Amino acid sequence: METNLTGLSIIGSGRGKPNSRTFSAFDPKTGEEIGPQFFSADPQELQKAVDLAEAARIGYGKLSGLEKARFLRKIAETIENLGDVLIERASMETGLPNARFIGERGRTCSQLRMFADLLEEGSWVDARIDRADPLRQPAAKPDVRSMLRPIGPVAVFCAGNFPLAFSVAGGDTASALAAGCPVVVNAHNSHPGTAELVGLAIRRAVEETGLPEGVFSLLFSKDYEIGQGLVGHPSIRAVGFTGSLKGGRALMDIAARRKEPIPVYAEMGSINPVFLLPGAMREKTEEIAAGLHGSFNLGFGQFCTKPGVVFASDDENFLPFSAKLAELTLETGSAPLLSGKIRDSFLEGIEERVKSAGLVYGSSALDGFAVNSAFFQTDAETFLENGGLQGEIFGPTTLLVKADNKENLLEIARTLEGQLTATVHGTEKDLAEFSDLIEILETKAGRLIFNGFPTGVEVCPAMVHGGVFPATSDSRSTSVGTRATERFARLVCFQDFPQNSLPVELRDHNPLGIHRLIDGEFSRVPI
Amino acid sequence: METNLTGLSIIGSGRGKPNSRTFSAFDPKTGEEIGPQFFSADPQELQKAVDLAEAARIGYGKLSGLEKARFLRKIAETIENLGDVLIERASMETGLPNARFIGERGRTCSQLRMFADLLEEGSWVDARIDRADPLRQPAAKPDVRSMLRPIGPVAVFCAGNFPLAFSVAGGDTASALAAGCPVVVNAHNSHPGTAELVGLAIRRAVEETGLPEGVFSLLFSKDYEIGQGLVGHPSIRAVGFTGSLKGGRALMDIAARRKEPIPVYAEMGSINPVFLLPGAMREKTEEIAAGLHGSFNLGFGQFCTKPGVVFASDDENFLPFSAKLAELTLETGSAPLLSGKIRDSFLEGIEERVKSAGLVYGSSALDGFAVNSAFFQTDAETFLENGGLQGEIFGPTTLLVKADNKENLLEIARTLEGQLTATVHGTEKDLAEFSDLIEILETKAGRLIFNGFPTGVEVCPAMVHGGVFPATSDSRSTSVGTRATERFARLVCFQDFPQNSLPVELRDHNPLGIHRLIDGEFSRVPI
Repeated sequence: METNLTGLSIIGSGRGKPNSRTFSAFDPKTGEEIGPQFFSADPQELQKAVDLAEAARIGYGKLSGLEKARFLRKIAETIENLGDVLIERASMETGLPNARFIGERGRTCSQLRMFADLLEEGSWVDARIDRADPLRQPAAKPDVRSMLRPIGPVAVFCAGNFPLAFSVAGGDTASALAAGCPVVVNAHNSHPGTAELVGLAIRRAVEETGLPEGVFSLLFSKDYEIGQGLVGHPSIRAVGFTGSLKGGRALMDIAARRKEPIPVYAEMGSINPVFLLPGAMREKTEEIAAGLHGSFNLGFGQFCTKPGVVFASDDENFLPFSAKLAELTLETGSAPLLSGKIRDSFLEGIEERVKSAGLVYGSSALDGFAVNSAFFQTDAETFLENGGLQGEIFGPTTLLVKADNKENLLEIARTLEGQLTATVHGTEKDLAEFSDLIEILETKAGRLIFNGFPTGVEVCPAMVHGGVFPATSDSRSTSVGTRATERFARLVCFQDFPQNSLPVELRDHNPLGIHRLIDGEFSRVPI
Repeated sequence: METNLTGLSIIGSGRGKPNSRTFSAFDPKTGEEIGPQFFSADPQELQKAVDLAEAARIGYGKLSGLEKARFLRKIAETIENLGDVLIERASMETGLPNARFIGERGRTCSQLRMFADLLEEGSWVDARIDRADPLRQPAAKPDVRSMLRPIGPVAVFCAGNFPLAFSVAGGDTASALAAGCPVVVNAHNSHPGTAELVGLAIRRAVEETGLPEGVFSLLFSKDYEIGQGLVGHPSIRAVGFTGSLKGGRALMDIAARRKEPIPVYAEMGSINPVFLLPGAMREKTEEIAAGLHGSFNLGFGQFCTKPGVVFASDDENFLPFSAKLAELTLETGSAPLLSGKIRDSFLEGIEERVKSAGLVYGSSALDGFAVNSAFFQTDAETFLENGGLQGEIFGPTTLLVKADNKENLLEIARTLEGQLTATVHGTEKDLAEFSDLIEILETKAGRLIFNGFPTGVEVCPAMVHGGVFPATSDSRSTSVGTRATERFARLVCFQDFPQNSLPVELRDHNPLGIHRLIDGEFSRVPI
């Protein structure tokens, strides 16, 4: 299989052209450029990619679940066939170890296969049938049947911090393809080589399954022009994005100002608050400190679910907890962040935070993009007065906030912005006593965690990786788990259509054996 | 029960204050004002209504389905208890006959009861459970459970053309209350008396079921200030609107520019295209003409699903069809439109259209807000060249377009904007021959109708009253049918929570007996 990097966009079955708008990846360990050069797509190439997607829209959208599942499985297979070349390139472009990418590739391929399973089972389309009653008075009741259908071509933005699982063949692409939508991917320019390799794998899967070429394209871009062009393009019908609040909001604004506004699913910032309740602090001070330290340093703090702020009451366990966290932070080695931009933001964030919160361990620039881990501490009053302390600092740092009492914790919870997650450590007695805290947190976050840590997002049907703005652009949705597919689908209803003109999911005899709502009752049986 | 109109906003258990910003309803039959005066809410009253809604948010949001169902049934009962006072006021404010409102009240109350049924059954929350596996390698699998929870306070805008079924206690209010969201309604100033009566009925239901007063408020407004203020208010979390494209788009823009953007469910314009295929035209020219005439004049053309454009091929049946439609239009009596504003827009639309399409029957202002029915005809070339002919004219008029051939019909279909509905009349042979037309229409409309007419939206679980922009702001949703509730809900996930701290829907023993997805399998059984 083709694994030579050319730096050219993948536009259906064709490639972009070399030009003077080039950029390169960097080795975060040294801060040096690594080859080859990548060439920004130009507006004509963007237009071509979107035109191909639009041309493939109806043909791909009407494929059966089995056909789409075959395609997703083939993508997983072609990615695995890239072998070590992919793992090594991802590691080189990110400074993260090979083992991380062996894991992330596993997750990427299992996601693809999870959506394939979903399609093969088939019930995700929410098929509903209300049968006719020609004798009903005062008017005959029509036959009404509906289901989810693909929304149309989707633009997917690769995430800086997940070169595989949230990038070219990541969750957004997999769920959009599962829904029946062609995808145009905007590569992340921190790991373009990884993007090209995965793009070639998807293209191979398109060819091997005989699908229209426009089902997938991958565009490189030196700056924001291509991404903005995609979101503003009339043929693009939805957007998947994982990145910063600033970037996500910019795309939301472009999408909202279009002649035809479109949904943007942006997963943006979150500080993932952790509340340590008194009973838990008493029973397992050191265990929580160790778990928290592991969580805020996992992937060197570059996960969207990193716990960025921790609240605990001012009791006899606070000081030992704080001391333990300080000790662990001091012992943490340095490591490179993903890019020079992330390193610079991290150092700026740290510098700013030093002004308002006590720093336990300093952080300074080291070789390449490396930094040290940092731990801050402040009190509730300062936290409540200084909105900046709710800002996310992407990287290995967290802020411990000392609260006076329960009322103080509730007040803090009420002032929190929207979050991907909120975590509570407590005994069952704590939980009963703080039930009002849980009720508040439920209005703020997409996922509540009890006695655990927010990093590590299980990929399963019940998972919700979403949350209230600014954590995401759309609190109704999730970007992880099988429900992610529903983001790229719309409801279509067929009234009084003859059997053989209906989608198979809506035909009386239920040839796929899917789960449907028939006259208001769930059933898998034919009618 | 209280049925005296005071013209004052209903703010929880209190009322607004009289002021100088007053307006009145009009009798469309005479164009004269009718009493009493209504008083615009002021910014403090808006703030108070929203503060009460926010204060009720958690308490109302955690009610059980049975408790919310009891409330919805009580609303239906209190509305019915208003008796003839409601029917007569609605008729007076709209110029439509009492019989229309007896029907619309029936629909309004059945909608409320349909959502009550949905809540009592309980499965709508999409409960999902993925059980833990502590022994899984390389990492233990957590226990992950999720379901839909209320999004928070909702602003609902009353529709001009449905004083009951899409107004104060209409589909948006009923579905938001069902989801567990407090509602603040912005009354439509064409039928404020009807709004006040229904508002009093809901307030009575709030009192009788012992709910927090902030669950419901109703604000009157002379102009757009209150509506815009509601959509921009940080405590409002979603918006339901039925009205014009201009009005809906203005609210979408306000919502998108907020610090925290929120979803707007706006049902706006649609011309509901009808395609007459050759076989059907041959077999039932007169029957289709009569049905179409009935449909575009139903409610005197003031339904969002009115067929505003009809396409037919140029064959030997075209002329007889056109002649029949002209004859029926000539025989149609005049009737008042709902408001002076709608009458003026209708006449402007007719005047503009005369420039580009042949008019079969003229329309001129009569007593009050009355107009005549109007039928236009043009050819495909003119239709394709003149984008204005895709504009909606609200009222009793339609446009017949003569197409050259199948390719011409497909070209027209491809150029159509988003629609609530698209209708096809044909034989089964036509349908097979025009399958590519259906595929195109599916990407444009929320509901496809075969051999019927788009007016008359069945209220049932499978119904989709939605569609692609500009028909609605959000093609993923429906404002009619049980799925409407999902618009006002967001996903929340609970990880590793003990049984008795989980919402009952997510507890192992499934006390409600609802339908859930357990480890990826549908089931109603306890685990």
